[in-house]
Amino acid sequence: MLRHVKVIAFDADDTLWVNEPYFQEIEQQFCGLLEDYLPRHSVSQELYKTELANLPLYGYGVKAFMLCMIETILRVTNNTAPPELLHKAIQCGQELLQKPIVLLDGVETVLEALKGKYRLVVATKGDLLDQERKLQKSGLAHYFHHIEIMSDKQEKDFRKLIRHLDCQPEEFLMLGNSLRSDVLPVLAIGGHAVHIPYHTTWQHEHVDHKVEHERFYEISTIAEILPHLL
Amino acid sequence: MLRHVKVIAFDADDTLWVNEPYFQEIEQQFCGLLEDYLPRHSVSQELYKTELANLPLYGYGVKAFMLCMIETILRVTNNTAPPELLHKAIQCGQELLQKPIVLLDGVETVLEALKGKYRLVVATKGDLLDQERKLQKSGLAHYFHHIEIMSDKQEKDFRKLIRHLDCQPEEFLMLGNSLRSDVLPVLAIGGHAVHIPYHTTWQHEHVDHKVEHERFYEISTIAEILPHLL
Repeated sequence: MLRHVKVIAFDADDTLWVNEPYFQEIEQQFCGLLEDYLPRHSVSQELYKTELANLPLYGYGVKAFMLCMIETILRVTNNTAPPELLHKAIQCGQELLQKPIVLLDGVETVLEALKGKYRLVVATKGDLLDQERKLQKSGLAHYFHHIEIMSDKQEKDFRKLIRHLDCQPEEFLMLGNSLRSDVLPVLAIGGHAVHIPYHTTWQHEHVDHKVEHERFYEISTIAEILPHLL
Repeated sequence: MLRHVKVIAFDADDTLWVNEPYFQEIEQQFCGLLEDYLPRHSVSQELYKTELANLPLYGYGVKAFMLCMIETILRVTNNTAPPELLHKAIQCGQELLQKPIVLLDGVETVLEALKGKYRLVVATKGDLLDQERKLQKSGLAHYFHHIEIMSDKQEKDFRKLIRHLDCQPEEFLMLGNSLRSDVLPVLAIGGHAVHIPYHTTWQHEHVDHKVEHERFYEISTIAEILPHLL
């Protein structure tokens, strides 16, 4: 089924490199900041509530996350927060923007093997500058024909991407760790999708049901895609 | 000289629609918030200092501006800011993200006249989702083959854009209100550039010297470009 594929798009965060564990580490620090006001678990829920509410206005990425931490501090402390807390939240966010890039197992082997045989692209959500910087820091930029930073990954966004890449849906394969963002919309518009679950996922990306589809594969590490493509 | 041009890129903010006056309005509100601590003019300088310091980490756009307002409040008040001020700064930023789009004079006439004769693109800095939303709200999206939201507008960024658009530098014309961002780097890489000064410019975009170049034009309203292109 994959023999028509010409363009392979890779999600970046938690597909090419470590991301969600960094967010969770920072979120733990953040919850610690507010422990005097609310149990950690409830802080986490409040933060998630703020993130969901602001998603349509701010979109994805670290800067939105920082603004949501600040808003959550103000709400949870009922406007009594010592400014020190806000300082620390900003520092947490800035730390997140400067984390080292740690490639996931097998990523370079896979890119090296596919290079020249397919058009390889990165298709990721997040902040523009942040994602560009991560790709540069990763040392993987030279494998990719193109990096597309997307404001969202819904069907309409993939339709636009495919048009922009000048290929047909059946020539397009998306690999990623999110069923919600990397798999379901791509299958819906006629593309191929491969899911590589990561050990931890942001709750916004969770999908409850099982996916079965003739253009869908699930693999456990990225290298398992090679026998299907070579 | 413009007869080789095939692709015309338009800057968006203050070239296609009103932007800087909105920022200045919000900045005035922001300076008012801190009047008890510092004269307005000094607040404005402190904010600009924060913006410049964070530019390499945050990049351009409203979310970065919001984070800078918050950081400036904390610094200017020496960490004694009532949280109400931070709330208001967030509200200012959210207001900025939801401003109506007001097209500049002549924009639609120009796009309508050039449509089909050239490949028209938007090339703008700023937040990804924010700029996409503004283009949608503007009603101009259908004129453009492509919108490129750029993390910066330096020579390397225009080189990447031109490669991505699959055209030669001498086939590329950039129109915009910033000498620093829309004109100088484009001339430097061999493209054509047209400057349309706007009545007000962010100080970061200021250029002191006069530009003279065989591939450069200055016009006072966008419609003046038409005789050169039709």
